[in-house]
Amino acid sequence: MGRALELALGGPRTGVNPQVGCVLLSPSGEVLAEGRHEGAGSPHAEVAALAALTAARGPEAAHGATAVVTLEPCDHHGRTGPCSTVLIEAGVARVVFAVHDPGVLSGGGAERMSVAGIDVVPGVGAAEVETAIRPWLTAARNGRPFVTVKWAQSLDGRAAAADGSSHWITGSAARADVHRRRADADVVLAGIGTVLADDPELTARDGERLLAHQPAPVVLGRREVPPAARLRAHPVPLRRFDGRDLRAVLDSLWDDGVRSVFVEGGPTVASAFLAAGLADEVLVYLAPTLIGGPRLALNDLGVATISDQRRLAVDEVVPLGDDLLVVAHPAHPDFLSPLEPHHPTRIALKE
Amino acid sequence: MGRALELALGGPRTGVNPQVGCVLLSPSGEVLAEGRHEGAGSPHAEVAALAALTAARGPEAAHGATAVVTLEPCDHHGRTGPCSTVLIEAGVARVVFAVHDPGVLSGGGAERMSVAGIDVVPGVGAAEVETAIRPWLTAARNGRPFVTVKWAQSLDGRAAAADGSSHWITGSAARADVHRRRADADVVLAGIGTVLADDPELTARDGERLLAHQPAPVVLGRREVPPAARLRAHPVPLRRFDGRDLRAVLDSLWDDGVRSVFVEGGPTVASAFLAAGLADEVLVYLAPTLIGGPRLALNDLGVATISDQRRLAVDEVVPLGDDLLVVAHPAHPDFLSPLEPHHPTRIALKE
Ligand SMILES: NC(=O)c1ccc[n+]([C@@H]2O[C@H](COP(=O)([O-])OP(=O)(O)OC[C@H]3O[C@@H](n4cnc5c(N)ncnc54)[C@H](OP(=O)(O)O)[C@@H]3O)[C@@H](O)[C@H]2O)c1
Ligand SMILES: NC(=O)c1ccc[n+]([C@@H]2O[C@H](COP(=O)([O-])OP(=O)(O)OC[C@H]3O[C@@H](n4cnc5c(N)ncnc54)[C@H](OP(=O)(O)O)[C@@H]3O)[C@@H](O)[C@H]2O)c1
Repeated sequence: MGRALELALGGPRTGVNPQVGCVLLSPSGEVLAEGRHEGAGSPHAEVAALAALTAARGPEAAHGATAVVTLEPCDHHGRTGPCSTVLIEAGVARVVFAVHDPGVLSGGGAERMSVAGIDVVPGVGAAEVETAIRPWLTAARNGRPFVTVKWAQSLDGRAAAADGSSHWITGSAARADVHRRRADADVVLAGIGTVLADDPELTARDGERLLAHQPAPVVLGRREVPPAARLRAHPVPLRRFDGRDLRAVLDSLWDDGVRSVFVEGGPTVASAFLAAGLADEVLVYLAPTLIGGPRLALNDLGVATISDQRRLAVDEVVPLGDDLLVVAHPAHPDFLSPLEPHHPTRIALKE
Repeated sequence: MGRALELALGGPRTGVNPQVGCVLLSPSGEVLAEGRHEGAGSPHAEVAALAALTAARGPEAAHGATAVVTLEPCDHHGRTGPCSTVLIEAGVARVVFAVHDPGVLSGGGAERMSVAGIDVVPGVGAAEVETAIRPWLTAARNGRPFVTVKWAQSLDGRAAAADGSSHWITGSAARADVHRRRADADVVLAGIGTVLADDPELTARDGERLLAHQPAPVVLGRREVPPAARLRAHPVPLRRFDGRDLRAVLDSLWDDGVRSVFVEGGPTVASAFLAAGLADEVLVYLAPTLIGGPRLALNDLGVATISDQRRLAVDEVVPLGDDLLVVAHPAHPDFLSPLEPHHPTRIALKE
């Protein structure tokens, strides 16, 4: 499963489809073939692995084999056939997978294979795979894009000094980290307040160089993006939403194939996502400085009393130069933690 | 020097006098005797070590010996004689010490001993000793008590929810840590706002049990401490200041022998110490939660523009249960870092 995950993570991180890897093993445990999913439109990992195997050793080569795959083989006629059927027809004897496919259309492959007499073993390496492809899984389970809310602040929670100046609170290592993470998202989103104040490019860069994947820029707000805004030079065309309903914004993006949104603020928009319970992950870049005063990194979250506070579970604290990055997710009870898969007992296993 | 520091740290951490340890070595490096300073009124470490040695081996036993001591032997007639003279008269040949005595009255021992023909070697193990007794050294150098400003906050810098409720933002491990650190201070200080809002005991406790050393409680504010306030049951009598001049408060405490003050808030008083540049150390207990809204852990610090921000140097980030403690000190240029002793070349060394 470790190798299957390694294969998976070689595929593209963004877009509608998950990263999936597959290893085919002979009954004696010898590696017969490997496959990964290279993104929407290309074959699924299982199909890629089977194709490699039959090309090399003929159509019967998968008879009695074990398929080790990071995600439950799909049961869905999409741009490729259902992997469940392909594995059954190839004569695979055993399918070991980590995480159930949460898709309404694509899930159910395990059940079909089990009924067809394949020995199906779910949950192997589930924690690692859940962690590795959490954004995609969360998006699929929620039926909306995975939302990362990122902000930079002083230790005391300020985003700027009283006069609005904020260059720089965090250091270059923190800013470079933001660019790397932007490049992992389908969309980078900012409020019109930030666009008007900072005129950001919202590209993912390494120094001056554009990174290979560029998230699509989205701006929220009724006010217009000025014609001369740097954002208009972004390699991906700008999209603007002028409504206040963030769920509607996310639904619309979902329909366009967006699975991950990187919310870059400012304070009003970041707070609105958090207050609406629409943040799946927060990235807080904490600079070792105190600023005080009125320019807060977050404003109101609708927390009237302490029992309403938005508790977080911290995933990581990463030193970046002098700064600290706190990676966390909401600790609310319906959060899907990696150790509690969503459908742990959805299929009845063969003995 | 390691052993001398170990001895030093066995002495009391609070009060007018520093923790000091001394090891006497024969010319061949054999340990002859050890001593530590047990606090104001008891013999200095060098005197204690010499006394132990002469009691065991007679008045000539220190002839030609080396004294290894964490702090420069004093040159001051206080409640004990000047250690410089005692070491000279005992016939010690060599004095190795870590850190210069910054006291106006007590400093200068190295020079006197050097002039008297003793081989004086300063700066050995200086970084470790500086770190270990930093509060006392900083206080002595500044001529005012060492000030620790502590607060607890959500990740976004709030001290309470909108209705003022704040129990609990941080967890029990963080609260226990606060009690341990309180016990290391001479004074625990709060604003009257906190006293009226929270009715704190301001004792240092381990669960219900009072710790051995209790800091003296000090309250700042014009409003009266209510007769029924729990603070009035503190084992050390309460002291109140009704002025706004924090430096004057510190000077008055200094005159009473206070060398360390633990400022426990609330936001107004904590911000006032920070704005006045009177914080030597900050302890920020960061809870993994977001609260938003108007109840800020710090309010105004007089930072108008970003170049005035109060940069900190982070000493440590300590996980405490789900919380993080950030220990930091102001990064302003006149801060005395452990690697840059204040008077590195004050005495001319013998060849
Ligand atoms: N520290 C950081 O990480 C960080 C990051 C980015 C920006 N900033 C700073 O933040 C400042 C800008 O702050 P800001 O709060 O005005 O910017 P913002 O959050 O980027 O934009 C706020 C605007 O977004 C619009 N909007 C769209 N959907 C909304 C919704 N659901 N709820 C509320 N408003 C919505 C509103 O404009 P309309 O009325 O036009 O619709 C609103 O005024 C700048 O000074 C910038 O430097 C800091
Ligand atoms: N998160 C935390 O770590 C923490 C810690 C403690 C308290 N709190 C919370 O903080 C709240 C109380 O906040 P607060 O800001 O009112 O309390 P505070 O800072 O304890 O007290 C403020 C008061 O101190 C007096 N004061 C004395 N010297 C002053 C000076 N130099 N500058 C300004 N004021 C001075 C003033 O009262 P007079 O006008 O009477 O002189 C002022 O109103 C409570 O809700 C408490 O729960 C939080």
